Amino acid sequence: MKTNISLEEAQTLLLALAKPVKEGYVSLFDATGRVLSQDIQAGQDLPPFAKSPLDGYALQAKDTEKVAQLGSVKLSVIEEIRAGYLPAKKVTSGTASKVMTGAPVPAGADVIIKYEAVERNGDYITISDILNAGSNIIQAGEDIKKGETVAYKNNLLSPSLIGLFAGIGLSKVPVFNKVRVAILSTGDELLDPAQELQPGKIYNSNLHSLRALCLKLGTEPIAFGIVADKQAVTAERISQALMVSDIVITTGGASVGDYDVVLDALKQMAANIIFWKVDMKPGSPVIAAEKNNKLIIALSGNPAAALITFNLIVVPLLKKMMGLACQLPLRISAVFADNFPKQSPQRRFLRGRIYRQDEKNYIKLTGEQSNGILKSMITCNALIDIPANSGPLCVGQKVSAVLVGNIDERTAAVLPGL
Amino acid sequence: MKTNISLEEAQTLLLALAKPVKEGYVSLFDATGRVLSQDIQAGQDLPPFAKSPLDGYALQAKDTEKVAQLGSVKLSVIEEIRAGYLPAKKVTSGTASKVMTGAPVPAGADVIIKYEAVERNGDYITISDILNAGSNIIQAGEDIKKGETVAYKNNLLSPSLIGLFAGIGLSKVPVFNKVRVAILSTGDELLDPAQELQPGKIYNSNLHSLRALCLKLGTEPIAFGIVADKQAVTAERISQALMVSDIVITTGGASVGDYDVVLDALKQMAANIIFWKVDMKPGSPVIAAEKNNKLIIALSGNPAAALITFNLIVVPLLKKMMGLACQLPLRISAVFADNFPKQSPQRRFLRGRIYRQDEKNYIKLTGEQSNGILKSMITCNALIDIPANSGPLCVGQKVSAVLVGNIDERTAAVLPGL
Repeated sequence: MKTNISLEEAQTLLLALAKPVKEGYVSLFDATGRVLSQDIQAGQDLPPFAKSPLDGYALQAKDTEKVAQLGSVKLSVIEEIRAGYLPAKKVTSGTASKVMTGAPVPAGADVIIKYEAVERNGDYITISDILNAGSNIIQAGEDIKKGETVAYKNNLLSPSLIGLFAGIGLSKVPVFNKVRVAILSTGDELLDPAQELQPGKIYNSNLHSLRALCLKLGTEPIAFGIVADKQAVTAERISQALMVSDIVITTGGASVGDYDVVLDALKQMAANIIFWKVDMKPGSPVIAAEKNNKLIIALSGNPAAALITFNLIVVPLLKKMMGLACQLPLRISAVFADNFPKQSPQRRFLRGRIYRQDEKNYIKLTGEQSNGILKSMITCNALIDIPANSGPLCVGQKVSAVLVGNIDERTAAVLPGL
Repeated sequence: MKTNISLEEAQTLLLALAKPVKEGYVSLFDATGRVLSQDIQAGQDLPPFAKSPLDGYALQAKDTEKVAQLGSVKLSVIEEIRAGYLPAKKVTSGTASKVMTGAPVPAGADVIIKYEAVERNGDYITISDILNAGSNIIQAGEDIKKGETVAYKNNLLSPSLIGLFAGIGLSKVPVFNKVRVAILSTGDELLDPAQELQPGKIYNSNLHSLRALCLKLGTEPIAFGIVADKQAVTAERISQALMVSDIVITTGGASVGDYDVVLDALKQMAANIIFWKVDMKPGSPVIAAEKNNKLIIALSGNPAAALITFNLIVVPLLKKMMGLACQLPLRISAVFADNFPKQSPQRRFLRGRIYRQDEKNYIKLTGEQSNGILKSMITCNALIDIPANSGPLCVGQKVSAVLVGNIDERTAAVLPGL
């Protein structure tokens, strides 16, 4: 068992062990936000046939050459073709078929002229333009050719990609299964917020914040409730959670106290302990273990510490398991626009908010930085990475920060510099 | 009925008419991504009582003053208090209680010293430090005070906010209902991708791409299927859709052709037509109408045009209905890193991809720009806004672009300048 390792070593060790979950097929109706498990080749052309982009007349371009001498040509309209219906007749010299937007181009025709550019009298049209063959025709396969690779394994299924799949007749897509994340809170002091508060007890916030993060990420959280600070019970609940999930996350009891039972519970289960403690503040007490090829990550019970280590250590892991190619959080440099008078003997992550001003990134602290304080997480969009043995931080210092959580529009709004 | 109005006028007209949907209460388990409909005041302190941030001993600070003369003081340990349990005894001069992390601070004690800083022998501890009252105690309400406003109406419910609500014992939150968006595709030529392809028909991609966009945004899409290009049937289906939704979006049949029946269908329903056609390319044929205080927006049937107008016109509307304070898409300026040889007599939106290089935003076209082409939407993260009467665009020109869809991490990665 390694101990007191760096955040980067923890990330590397876990990403090497994490494997994408199994694959399956889902309907396009369930595909939003899922991740492709295979490259996708188009099974047909898009569009599947040559069609008209407008309401007009399909004819032979060479018929319009006579306009040069005669000033105009007159063609007989032989049928009207609507979108969704097949042409019944072939266009020959001297004839034209009326075509509606999206209608198949009739055989024999090689150009379409728009409705407004012709004069119609009864069953005849008069044309005064010389047309080039191919004009105003959307060719079969113009958007996508049969056999063309349209998307790749590890691509996130966006609305446009889902639309494109529908367009090529793909109603089911190969995706990685949803990662099932069991979340278990340890602590005799915990109550569910739906319960009445009792003296000496506190409400369990970690289950709710981590569950919401899992949902936002596109995984399937399984709320495994609260377990007492007893080694045997904790071992049993973790074992149960492992059976129905792909990864188990616990909070609380991961430190060195007399009632920090998670490490012993994992040993009792004969789990392979990968590491214990990461050299960072807050959130140092993290245990990573493996059992039956599944990972168990035990986080601190302090609400802010749990959220921060979840973002820095668990989220990259979950992204790998989801099948995403890009896993580690984004790093941004910014100018510190605040004062933080404390020394940092240990590597520390401070909760901050990046904003953009005069084409530069600035970052301010979002409030109290203690392990247990949740309020400063609310407006936090980045964690300032303070190296060990740093002195006080002053206005104007350059800092490096890690973007946390999904980027929301409010976050993006402050970044690009409008 | 207004016609051929600017995009900005269309947005303004519709945002003035759109109202947030009704409010309700949801469990924290269903709150992720929802929008608050009321300000939230904390009903209790967080934490609810003074507690210990570490494993240690609770005692009276004045007892440690004697360390100055004696070098150390010896205190009798009267009990052990675990997290979740109440102290049974009061700490008096000469005594201390062992406290575990999270345990309530016993009456009489005003300081906590960490476990590692004392020497324990049997029922006694020896202390060699002079301590200040209040040290190592998390005071009741240190994170949040009872009555404090912790979140505001129109706030998006993030994971941290959900965790904070759990922490203050709020198990149900007031939110705006999910906006129900009925999506209806018109067109005799359309097939669902699960059906077998027939000659002259194409697969309906709009339902799937728009449905996925609605899901990503956090609304509840209702797939209303495909309706034939017949006025009476279209009017009937739109009326049915209005009954079960908050807004109806149709695609196809919104232009001027013989089989573009949506405008007439809306008139037949006695809907109030707000405008028809927006001065932009692609996606000019947009109809906005109102019936029974609900909006109906009819978009072009061309897949790219439908996606673009949905992003520019419908998304702001849906955000207003969801209760979000920020509705219009973000605008970014960038350097055009491509060539586009065509003139743009009409205002035009080109599909592009913004990326960051040397601290600057650049944008390239993502491929073919025709109305029907879906492929260039796949990697598109911004629409370049080309004013009417523009000439060809060259490398190096400054352009203005509108970010489309939700900002994903890939998009953000190219924006902030790492």
